[in-house]
Amino acid sequence: MTHRPDTPLLDTVDVPADLRKLKPGQLRQFADELRDEVISAVSVTGGHLGAGLGVVELTTAIHYVFNTPEDRLVWDVGHQCYPHKILTGRRDRIRTLRQGGGLSGFTKRSESEYDAFGAAHSSTSISAALGFAVANKLTDRPGKGIAVIGDGAMSAGMAYEAMNNAEQAGNRLVVILNDNDMSIAPPVGGLSAYLARAVSSSEYLGLRSLAKRLASKIHRRVYNAAEKAEEFARGMATGGTLFEELGFYYVGPIDGHNLDHLIPVLENVRDSDQGPILVHVVTKKGKGYAPAEASADKYHGVAKFDVVTGKQDKGKGGGPPAYQNVFGETLAKLADSDDRICAITAAMPSGTGVDKFNQAHPDRAFDVGIAEQHAVTFAAGLAAQGMRPFCAIYSTFLQRAYDQVVHDVAIQNLPVRFAIDRAGLVGADGATHAGSFDLAYLCTLPNFVVMAPSDEAELVHMTKTCVEHDSGPIAVRYPRGNGTGVALPEVPEVLEIGKGRIVRQGKKVAILSLGTRLAEALKAADTLDAKGLSTTVADLRFAKPLDEALIRKLLTSHEVCVTVEEAAVGGFGAHVLTMASDAGLIDAGLKLRTMRLPDIFQDQDNPDKQYADAGLDAAGIVDTVLKALRHNSTAVGEAGAIA
Amino acid sequence: MTHRPDTPLLDTVDVPADLRKLKPGQLRQFADELRDEVISAVSVTGGHLGAGLGVVELTTAIHYVFNTPEDRLVWDVGHQCYPHKILTGRRDRIRTLRQGGGLSGFTKRSESEYDAFGAAHSSTSISAALGFAVANKLTDRPGKGIAVIGDGAMSAGMAYEAMNNAEQAGNRLVVILNDNDMSIAPPVGGLSAYLARAVSSSEYLGLRSLAKRLASKIHRRVYNAAEKAEEFARGMATGGTLFEELGFYYVGPIDGHNLDHLIPVLENVRDSDQGPILVHVVTKKGKGYAPAEASADKYHGVAKFDVVTGKQDKGKGGGPPAYQNVFGETLAKLADSDDRICAITAAMPSGTGVDKFNQAHPDRAFDVGIAEQHAVTFAAGLAAQGMRPFCAIYSTFLQRAYDQVVHDVAIQNLPVRFAIDRAGLVGADGATHAGSFDLAYLCTLPNFVVMAPSDEAELVHMTKTCVEHDSGPIAVRYPRGNGTGVALPEVPEVLEIGKGRIVRQGKKVAILSLGTRLAEALKAADTLDAKGLSTTVADLRFAKPLDEALIRKLLTSHEVCVTVEEAAVGGFGAHVLTMASDAGLIDAGLKLRTMRLPDIFQDQDNPDKQYADAGLDAAGIVDTVLKALRHNSTAVGEAGAIA
Repeated sequence: MTHRPDTPLLDTVDVPADLRKLKPGQLRQFADELRDEVISAVSVTGGHLGAGLGVVELTTAIHYVFNTPEDRLVWDVGHQCYPHKILTGRRDRIRTLRQGGGLSGFTKRSESEYDAFGAAHSSTSISAALGFAVANKLTDRPGKGIAVIGDGAMSAGMAYEAMNNAEQAGNRLVVILNDNDMSIAPPVGGLSAYLARAVSSSEYLGLRSLAKRLASKIHRRVYNAAEKAEEFARGMATGGTLFEELGFYYVGPIDGHNLDHLIPVLENVRDSDQGPILVHVVTKKGKGYAPAEASADKYHGVAKFDVVTGKQDKGKGGGPPAYQNVFGETLAKLADSDDRICAITAAMPSGTGVDKFNQAHPDRAFDVGIAEQHAVTFAAGLAAQGMRPFCAIYSTFLQRAYDQVVHDVAIQNLPVRFAIDRAGLVGADGATHAGSFDLAYLCTLPNFVVMAPSDEAELVHMTKTCVEHDSGPIAVRYPRGNGTGVALPEVPEVLEIGKGRIVRQGKKVAILSLGTRLAEALKAADTLDAKGLSTTVADLRFAKPLDEALIRKLLTSHEVCVTVEEAAVGGFGAHVLTMASDAGLIDAGLKLRTMRLPDIFQDQDNPDKQYADAGLDAAGIVDTVLKALRHNSTAVGEAGAIA
Repeated sequence: MTHRPDTPLLDTVDVPADLRKLKPGQLRQFADELRDEVISAVSVTGGHLGAGLGVVELTTAIHYVFNTPEDRLVWDVGHQCYPHKILTGRRDRIRTLRQGGGLSGFTKRSESEYDAFGAAHSSTSISAALGFAVANKLTDRPGKGIAVIGDGAMSAGMAYEAMNNAEQAGNRLVVILNDNDMSIAPPVGGLSAYLARAVSSSEYLGLRSLAKRLASKIHRRVYNAAEKAEEFARGMATGGTLFEELGFYYVGPIDGHNLDHLIPVLENVRDSDQGPILVHVVTKKGKGYAPAEASADKYHGVAKFDVVTGKQDKGKGGGPPAYQNVFGETLAKLADSDDRICAITAAMPSGTGVDKFNQAHPDRAFDVGIAEQHAVTFAAGLAAQGMRPFCAIYSTFLQRAYDQVVHDVAIQNLPVRFAIDRAGLVGADGATHAGSFDLAYLCTLPNFVVMAPSDEAELVHMTKTCVEHDSGPIAVRYPRGNGTGVALPEVPEVLEIGKGRIVRQGKKVAILSLGTRLAEALKAADTLDAKGLSTTVADLRFAKPLDEALIRKLLTSHEVCVTVEEAAVGGFGAHVLTMASDAGLIDAGLKLRTMRLPDIFQDQDNPDKQYADAGLDAAGIVDTVLKALRHNSTAVGEAGAIA
């Protein structure tokens, strides 16, 4: 039975208006109760724990001081929003977080008017908050735009672009920098070092000095050289120079767990007629829950866990390895005998398996922070200088480097290798993390080779194939989660570019599979066989270039053909159709269907359910084949000639 | 006849090794000759003039001091590289710039070993140079990575991401900030204001003080608080604080036209064992050519011109209006009666026509700088708050905001309007500026409406249609250049979403056209008619959602059908095929062909030639139809059943 904490104050609060009825002296207890509720909820749902615990006081203070939802609050990434959800009318559903039909694990506009802007990818909050602020300014409506953004998210160029434009909003924009010195992996780079110096070189300001400083800063702006020198000296003491150079009023650093400091500072910020203002708040991930404080990385995202012991329910171990680890370990091994191999991750070392590579070859592993654009062009530079770089980036995050993929890699035909994890549907993280579009956005590019393994053994071969492919860009995309349990090859093989394989030979039906739906395709084939429909199953391996000879043979020797892929329209199936049309194979009639993800953004659920909903399971394949067989049509050529 | 300057010193230099044989005292004359040669060459080719003239001395100094090509020099954007091309073995072809078969207007790896990295989109240089530097470091090879980047390009997040990672390269990375306070349009934002303060608040340093400062800075790094205060004070005097906060050694500002300063400073930088170093150089766009100095914006990109008078050969005026201006003027007019309309450009006000909107509605026009990611999410914020924002971005540059299009706009189904200029092939700017992929990368996204006008009157209607479409994202993509000369409608109409139109009714052949190839489709239809092949031409208007009823009717009532679009594979044609396959229309035979851009990156040429090469002209369409008619095949269904 679940532990439910006693929460007498929290029980009186459904929405922020209720919170604002509390006295300041009650907020400490309220925050403690809110923290207990977060821990309790996540212990039964799993999810992002540490981030939410770190902002319990900040969430309380913001909703207490600002007039949400009129003031538009934007949580960057959104994985810290569980306390926010609890006190914005969603406490009754908080134990459905990340479940099918339940609350999203991120902010989501359709869930609540208090979720001003949906998130999940990082570093979008300042741009969005600026949009809210400017819209209100233009239409003379009340309401600020408030962005809460972590120090890790500040490493993305997008945040900098937004800061560079912040002046447009005047005092309607408030950026709260939530500095916990801890994104999913330790943050990297110059900005992180800068923030560390800022915090370590200064004491936390007492309330009196904070208020004084704030008043003196907010009420005038100095460009006079002498005054500016003083300003700089103060900036140095408190670390805000970088932000001040970009035009912000900087306030901080403030202890983000001390409500006696947070509340008056935010009140000052709220009432200021100057802006934009950046409030530098220092928090601790996992704050207030000992197991999470002790191990911030292990409690970033958690499985269900026991509140008392902190022990996570990781399920029974010993299953097949995760694709990311197969990739990372294979690449690390291949790099033992190849000095040119490098691996690059954008702040996802363990999620991409680059941590495995880093253990073996730390000098050739690069974590560039949340900076996918830089990651790809940095890799292009490495490739241009003769290295064999692998960009290991989730499918959905590679979208952020699309121009670099096109302009710096594809046009120059540089041999950057892309290890694209989280391709297809991803389960609990929902639509924002799905890797649905990579086949469409990569296969349209000249020079690219695009592969998808049907199991983890294939991924081993494809990783090796990437290594040896020096003539241009090459990508391998594979799903989130564990492999099928197939034995891993001792010796990785180089696959012939653009060649698929027949996995099962039949006569009447052909299933052209790309990627890990192969298992479902084989199940479907068994069912079809049992119905007397002898079925061939091919594993095409390559979405680009297509194995035209194999496809032509399959299309011309079977009565019904279907393509299957874990991607949106415009990818593998569309390219098979295009090839069939180019070759005139459809002229005389071709029962060919393409099965792909539906043209909607699918909400979170377990992946099997998601794929069943998408019709991309064995039953869906059988159904598609049978429908195609039954479909009756007249020859268009003849009808057309008559018309 | 062309003016050819006297260039006795330049004549002795084919490659940088020759330049290094000159004495320092000869460099002033060399630079003057180089400048004359640039002016002379561009006067006959047209192209980017001001940027190249601004870096004549810098180009000379870099190649004189550094050991190119071993030191890997990366020009950001690359439109300032004409002097570089002249002194790296390409002077004999410099008068073929931007012509078909000639030199590219940008750096290009395939042209020269001195072009370390191809460019054209901005802000990639630091990432690439870092790649070179790190590769050399890992393999223990000599050679630095040198990035030359303008202040405008510094507004892009990508440059910041790279600076944030620069420490990885140590002294092997040199970033030269070419601060001319002038990108194509005046630069915007906090960084620009910061640089202006840095330059205006300090005198240019004399050579002695520069050398002293350099020595003191480069040979130690200070974190001690007292020393740091001193460092800050100096930083304030010279403006480098922001870069120093990010971990750079900052040197500058230096007069970028004074070789007596540039050469010793760069020698110091070259010989330093500390790094990374940022050298802040101040230059003037168009330097040394009076007409260009006087009007930097008009001489950013020029037509052929008379060297003596400066008069540009703009060709005969009075032709049809450019698509960008039709868009800008239409939107400005619509905004007269609709306060919710906003327009956003990312540093391309005149190229996108947002300048026209800005003239009428300056409070609702936003130039965010080279910051496409921010532009899109800022627009999403505006839309979420009830505004009707238009993002006017070139097709190729929208690639840089792809994740924001997916994550912030499409998933949230926010009504951001995209006015996508430069769709399709673009002529002299070549492959890097072609807008080939937008149909593939947008049509795969749920919720999106994607339109393409066949002429400028259609663009007027589609702009109005965008305004009124409040239920989700909508995009209209149109080409570079002038319209067809059709009369513009007095009253813009709202088109029905997903409905195409028949332009010409025939019986045997159907051409399904999307976009401005319609004119060629109509020509092809005339030719086909003359051959006895009665031809229907439809203007589909919408790539998404497709007009399924119209397409079904066309496909089932004609003997041969072809789709035509100005985009790469995976776009309109692929979606028509997918629809036809979904509906079973191909089961009984369908002579359907999709005509699209070839699967290569096409080099610069005039657009008509480019489209002819691509087969996307009337002759190509006729040819495709005739080949399809002649194509003979057996019915696969029957053959398959027998096999």
